[in-house]
Amino acid sequence: MERKHPPNEEHIDREMVKMEVNLDDISGEWLGFVMDRLFDAGANDVFYSPIYMKKNRPGILLQLLCAASAIPKMKDILLAETTTLGIRYYPLTVHRMERTFTQVETEWGAVTVKQGLRNGEVFQSSPEYEMCKKIAEENNIPLKQVYQAVWKRL
Amino acid sequence: MERKHPPNEEHIDREMVKMEVNLDDISGEWLGFVMDRLFDAGANDVFYSPIYMKKNRPGILLQLLCAASAIPKMKDILLAETTTLGIRYYPLTVHRMERTFTQVETEWGAVTVKQGLRNGEVFQSSPEYEMCKKIAEENNIPLKQVYQAVWKRL
Amino acid sequence: MERKHPPNEEHIDREMVKMEVNLDDISGEWLGFVMDRLFDAGANDVFYSPIYMKKNRPGILLQLLCAASAIPKMKDILLAETTTLGIRYYPLTVHRMERTFTQVETEWGAVTVKQGLRNGEVFQSSPEYEMCKKIAEENNIPLKQVYQAVWKRL
Amino acid sequence: MERKHPPNEEHIDREMVKMEVNLDDISGEWLGFVMDRLFDAGANDVFYSPIYMKKNRPGILLQLLCAASAIPKMKDILLAETTTLGIRYYPLTVHRMERTFTQVETEWGAVTVKQGLRNGEVFQSSPEYEMCKKIAEENNIPLKQVYQAVWKRL
Amino acid sequence: MERKHPPNEEHIDREMVKMEVNLDDISGEWLGFVMDRLFDAGANDVFYSPIYMKKNRPGILLQLLCAASAIPKMKDILLAETTTLGIRYYPLTVHRMERTFTQVETEWGAVTVKQGLRNGEVFQSSPEYEMCKKIAEENNIPLKQVYQAVWKRL
Amino acid sequence: MERKHPPNEEHIDREMVKMEVNLDDISGEWLGFVMDRLFDAGANDVFYSPIYMKKNRPGILLQLLCAASAIPKMKDILLAETTTLGIRYYPLTVHRMERTFTQVETEWGAVTVKQGLRNGEVFQSSPEYEMCKKIAEENNIPLKQVYQAVWKRL
Repeated sequence: MERKHPPNEEHIDREMVKMEVNLDDISGEWLGFVMDRLFDAGANDVFYSPIYMKKNRPGILLQLLCAASAIPKMKDILLAETTTLGIRYYPLTVHRMERTFTQVETEWGAVTVKQGLRNGEVFQSSPEYEMCKKIAEENNIPLKQVYQAVWKRL
Repeated sequence: MERKHPPNEEHIDREMVKMEVNLDDISGEWLGFVMDRLFDAGANDVFYSPIYMKKNRPGILLQLLCAASAIPKMKDILLAETTTLGIRYYPLTVHRMERTFTQVETEWGAVTVKQGLRNGEVFQSSPEYEMCKKIAEENNIPLKQVYQAVWKRL
Repeated sequence: MERKHPPNEEHIDREMVKMEVNLDDISGEWLGFVMDRLFDAGANDVFYSPIYMKKNRPGILLQLLCAASAIPKMKDILLAETTTLGIRYYPLTVHRMERTFTQVETEWGAVTVKQGLRNGEVFQSSPEYEMCKKIAEENNIPLKQVYQAVWKRL
Repeated sequence: MERKHPPNEEHIDREMVKMEVNLDDISGEWLGFVMDRLFDAGANDVFYSPIYMKKNRPGILLQLLCAASAIPKMKDILLAETTTLGIRYYPLTVHRMERTFTQVETEWGAVTVKQGLRNGEVFQSSPEYEMCKKIAEENNIPLKQVYQAVWKRL
Repeated sequence: MERKHPPNEEHIDREMVKMEVNLDDISGEWLGFVMDRLFDAGANDVFYSPIYMKKNRPGILLQLLCAASAIPKMKDILLAETTTLGIRYYPLTVHRMERTFTQVETEWGAVTVKQGLRNGEVFQSSPEYEMCKKIAEENNIPLKQVYQAVWKRL
Repeated sequence: MERKHPPNEEHIDREMVKMEVNLDDISGEWLGFVMDRLFDAGANDVFYSPIYMKKNRPGILLQLLCAASAIPKMKDILLAETTTLGIRYYPLTVHRMERTFTQVETEWGAVTVKQGLRNGEVFQSSPEYEMCKKIAEENNIPLKQVYQAVWKRL
């Protein structure tokens, strides 16, 4: 029930939560894996911050953003894959801008560009990373060069 | 309507929000500029944390504190000056202590000291940075020396 | 009134808050002390993150988790021991898993292991750090070796 | 000429360098890509640290370790893929311990474990991450469970 | 005697050092000031990293790059303006690429672009931040828009 | 042979090294312990920085400063207590200022103050943390108050 707008239109989403876990007894190796698992399960974003914990421990603060309806699934992964026995969360409001996609021609082929719109006007253009990366790898050129070619044609 | 108390009296402000944006496609150069813009537009505080984002990306979490009434103005700047298409926020309560200002004489002139009060008693004294800095620069002495001179006379 | 469940049973705690303070005029020396004070006074967790503040200042974001009923006590310490004149906070929900304790025999004596349970099943086992540390020190062996001995017997 | 020892024997390598670049005008997106490129080209390690640069800029310190003979190749990539106009480096000594590989049987198949040896004795055992990850994914079990199974059998 | 090449030509500089100081008893306020002082005195770069020091102290690692001949001047400032009683340093080699400057016309006036050259070819172009910033402020437009206009015309 | 000066006189020490280890497969719990072990064994300083490692791993860079003659002892601890199979190091020069100790009377007893001297003049004064902490705890007053009392009497 929570989303009636088409997903790319501007809207204010009041059904989001941030979940947080403090971790001081897990390795970086496992954390790299946990991030993938959470994204695969539908998290909107997952990110780590370095934190200073008690007893001189360098720890990690795991933060993730998801729909309130996804809380149970995220909890399952956090409990299975990390070492935590407690998970905290709180609601937040997300204002998402209208987004659309356009194509830009380059000498190595077309690149999709995600555009942000406001009152019908483009205020932000982002070449799709995976496409630029693929072009850079296949043509053995710097990624920088691909982005610059796209920017020039925007 | 939200603030009826004189601004320097102790009060609990329930009209504040924290806004947050995750950024992985913007340079540090631009972020230095964004911070100034947000402060100029009335943000109570703006600060960055380093975060670990997907695909091995070092990113930045921008956090800002402002009055709920300032949300639209802050959104305008964030959309114009950063690369984000989404902004999240949540309310928080701020307990602000009574503050007053006093003058301390030093051999290089007077320095204003901000003081925090609780039940009528001073519990915190902070020499004003900009004044100390000016004295240090004009007299070609270490900033440390200026602060120490003020502390001695408190 | 807020906790009727035995403390080690799985429960959802809706009476928790996170308190936050930004600090750019305090030394690391003092912050090490503040952390101890807050834990001693009953904070559930206290941790620091590095933040980038205005005027090129490396600052610290202090975050602490506590029961809503502990807010006044935490405020007292933060005002007494740090340099802040303002403290912000917001409520959060904490899902805590059932936890129990078991003993594991090693060649240097027994070690307590904290276990997390879910639907009656153990999903997480953590040797108690202080006991492992004590064994490592008394027997002059690596801490790593103590943990490994415990893991093998789990 | 520089390495005459079999690569897995204990040795002291005096032909290594650390290269460093400070970056404040590049996005996290590109940096994720740069890391892969440098590893593909033979860097021994590549890692980023968050740094505070002038004008309130959150920046990144890129550090990489490589053989002195690989300096030119690394420079090529750094100049092509980042925004820097200068690269600094200095020599360091690396003491590498003898390493060997063993197999551990689990209920999901064998896992390779890398072992560090000192005076003929194993002092460190690390299950190979990629194998554990593959088992976790194929059997739809937590990565944690795979590691724990290996540790028990060591 | 150490630099005979014109300053913008490609060269390898073997007369550089990195100086480092660990700080756990100084505030962020002072550190913002120290950075300016060091740059004013001719440091090539100055940057801070968050570090975890003993006794649960969040500290700062100050790093600065300068010519070996500038060591005494930098020491003077570090001793005068920070709280340290010890300064460490080590030599490093810096490979600097040839750089030149070009002008790009925009609708708001010309912008200088710093270019990196390699074997006579431009491999990197950076619009001058201070000029872009001035245009953004004077014309009340986003900094992003100024950079994008320059990129299109490169 | 390396130190002939009395330890508190100004001198330049050319027998120091920095050792470094990158860690992505160890927990924060163990790292808190490792730091203590290294200090106990005579390290001049030990500190951690958060680093971004391959495969989305938040890692830790351990750095330690010690006399070249202490390298073997430090290696022993690093191999025993961490998960690394390789340790790197490089020499550095340390300029240490003359230091002396003085006593300051406060209402709660005397506090030792460490002072840095340059050309016979005091340029830095640091109240001894452990003494101030003890006074704060025994008298149940803020640590801040103890430092401020000392500063006033300097």
